[in-house]
Amino acid sequence: VISFESFTGGLITPDTDPDNPWRYKFTWNPRNVVMAGQGTAKFIQEGEYKYIPYQKLFLRTTPVDVPGVGRFEGYPNRDSLLYREAYGLQAIPTLIRGTLRYEGFCKAWNVFVQLGCCDDSYAMDGVENLTHASFLAAFLPGSSALTVGERLMNYLGLTPGDHLLKCLRWSGFFDDVPIGLTAGTPAKILEHILNKRWQLKPQDKDLIVMWHRFGYRSQGTIRHVQASLVATGNNSSDTAMAQTVGLPLGIAARLLLQGKVKERGVVIPLSREWYNPILDEINTYGISMTEEES
Amino acid sequence: VISFESFTGGLITPDTDPDNPWRYKFTWNPRNVVMAGQGTAKFIQEGEYKYIPYQKLFLRTTPVDVPGVGRFEGYPNRDSLLYREAYGLQAIPTLIRGTLRYEGFCKAWNVFVQLGCCDDSYAMDGVENLTHASFLAAFLPGSSALTVGERLMNYLGLTPGDHLLKCLRWSGFFDDVPIGLTAGTPAKILEHILNKRWQLKPQDKDLIVMWHRFGYRSQGTIRHVQASLVATGNNSSDTAMAQTVGLPLGIAARLLLQGKVKERGVVIPLSREWYNPILDEINTYGISMTEEES
Repeated sequence: VISFESFTGGLITPDTDPDNPWRYKFTWNPRNVVMAGQGTAKFIQEGEYKYIPYQKLFLRTTPVDVPGVGRFEGYPNRDSLLYREAYGLQAIPTLIRGTLRYEGFCKAWNVFVQLGCCDDSYAMDGVENLTHASFLAAFLPGSSALTVGERLMNYLGLTPGDHLLKCLRWSGFFDDVPIGLTAGTPAKILEHILNKRWQLKPQDKDLIVMWHRFGYRSQGTIRHVQASLVATGNNSSDTAMAQTVGLPLGIAARLLLQGKVKERGVVIPLSREWYNPILDEINTYGISMTEEES
Repeated sequence: VISFESFTGGLITPDTDPDNPWRYKFTWNPRNVVMAGQGTAKFIQEGEYKYIPYQKLFLRTTPVDVPGVGRFEGYPNRDSLLYREAYGLQAIPTLIRGTLRYEGFCKAWNVFVQLGCCDDSYAMDGVENLTHASFLAAFLPGSSALTVGERLMNYLGLTPGDHLLKCLRWSGFFDDVPIGLTAGTPAKILEHILNKRWQLKPQDKDLIVMWHRFGYRSQGTIRHVQASLVATGNNSSDTAMAQTVGLPLGIAARLLLQGKVKERGVVIPLSREWYNPILDEINTYGISMTEEES
């Protein structure tokens, strides 16, 4: 194996919330979404170690075409190198793990990164008097004679029709609406404002997309195998996130109670004893990978 | 008092190292220079709290004209608000403390910030095999078929004659020269490479520039008082940094030994008992503020 690329996203189905320009909602821990990518992403590419700091992470995305689902954008997720040993791929020249989003999301999210809105290291002053708009303004230069939207456009060099502005406007960041908190870090306040529109409504459906690509050399040519998984939730409570995380855990607990596994202690499910019966059973719930060779 | 702006820089004299495009050398703890600005800068401007994250700090500089010395650029330094109480300025609408550099420095330093070279939170891999150029390349996208300079230009949208490239080239970042370390964080390695050219040579002279501006309302008009201090070192050992930091401490120690001050415990020299005799005596060493009203 000469390369292993693995990207996964917790998204929403294309027909969920069709007017939402972000094409994203919180489908798991909102705090983790706000904090995502802080620290430096590490991976290895053609034998060279690569490091992407937070301030460039959402700009250096990779297009990922998932068979039968379409095109997404992926950004590297924390330390991909941690998985070399666990996967038995110590000498692999390319290893990257990442997160998938619909196209355009990362560029819009990068506004918060660049402004410093995802910082969780200090408490803001005067939070009880802040509105959505003045929260944003605290991170912007320029005179208060201009609107927050104008100051943002000047600061980031945007034009009035920019998709980024559409996203921020939809989320209410230009509104003089009280935030509704009396204290908080920028990250906490950002999460609170985003959650007003990004919380799943009862009939919203989430979508999990997982995509792996393995490269290997065979008789002098490089070949690829892609494996992908797509899971769709039924509503805001019976989510694909809950199924894909919860079912394997439930099956594993039963395997343990029935005495069908021998491993003891704190283990991760990287042995056949665990993953074979778990994968077999989640198949019966319609959760499975499809493979494709090229 | 309606505003207090205070900027200080530890620099080099204009005639020191005239071919150095950075117009900067290490004149105090190099590590602090590499780590400068990490975390968020906080200040208050016309009654609004302002926050600048690291990724924007070296882009949001303010021109500062120091009477008799010329124009510098200033960037805000950590939490200016910490000084409100110490200075007895609790209700002041504008308070900002910052660092001075020669014009152009901050834009060039920002290259390291954007690439992630100042990160001290993780150890890099394979440091023993890194060269100056491959250190930089670890933070750059793009094919290794291009030179590091070309990859940097593509990444940051620079043109071949850009001043930033001149600075990096002068510091040796495009050279395939071994770094000379076997381990280290990006920050540690960056400091090590920079120190090869930024260490003071015996006859180099450092320069301290301190500038304060106070704004106040008098009979309906806003008036300003500027106070500035310029101190020049004699050589790489008898530096202005050593004089301006060391002499007040030495004088304070003598005041204490001679029983001339009553304060005891851990105190900062914000009472007249301390600062009057200290300021009087450092005047005799040629270190003094000049004031100007407008």
